[in-house]
Amino acid sequence: MLFANTPNPPYYAVIFTSQRNEKDDDGYHSMADLMVELASKQPGFLGIESTRDENGLGITVSYWDSIESIQQWKENHFHMGAQEKGKKDWYSSYKTRICKVERDYTNSI
Amino acid sequence: MLFANTPNPPYYAVIFTSQRNEKDDDGYHSMADLMVELASKQPGFLGIESTRDENGLGITVSYWDSIESIQQWKENHFHMGAQEKGKKDWYSSYKTRICKVERDYTNSI
Repeated sequence: MLFANTPNPPYYAVIFTSQRNEKDDDGYHSMADLMVELASKQPGFLGIESTRDENGLGITVSYWDSIESIQQWKENHFHMGAQEKGKKDWYSSYKTRICKVERDYTNSI
Repeated sequence: MLFANTPNPPYYAVIFTSQRNEKDDDGYHSMADLMVELASKQPGFLGIESTRDENGLGITVSYWDSIESIQQWKENHFHMGAQEKGKKDWYSSYKTRICKVERDYTNSI
């Protein structure tokens, strides 16, 4: 999983920027993997791109066919549990942005 | 520079996902720093968030007030030189997505 193989625009993106705190992993990685697995089974899921640097700054972008699909995933029972745990134990700060992708350009060299 | 302090939506985002090749740095970091500095002086620039993991997968999201500001930055002389150099020497693949941010949620814990 590196680049998301998204269709022609328009489609939707959720940009999730987060700063991990300095506490131990405490299940973070296995929960992150599980959330990717669950998201990918949701209706309207188009793909995901995710990276985090050595200072704990991460950006995850998930792609969706519609705002309704994003809303459904936001309200997914397991995902809501993960969001609570993230807020409480894993992140010092985060920001979520919901976007409509209007154009894209690919280059595989 | 960690989180971009963007205004209330709507505004625009450019999601740039890239995979660094395994060649040496060859000026990559100083060029990346210079591009952030130049972008931040462009009309309509609102902020930038950028991260890259130990495998070279990076996501940079820059935020702008309009599609016109994005277009002007895309066509900036120095930026075009950097894009060419990136294509030729630094990235094995990349994808650019132009988005309209419709909603956002912040949480600083």
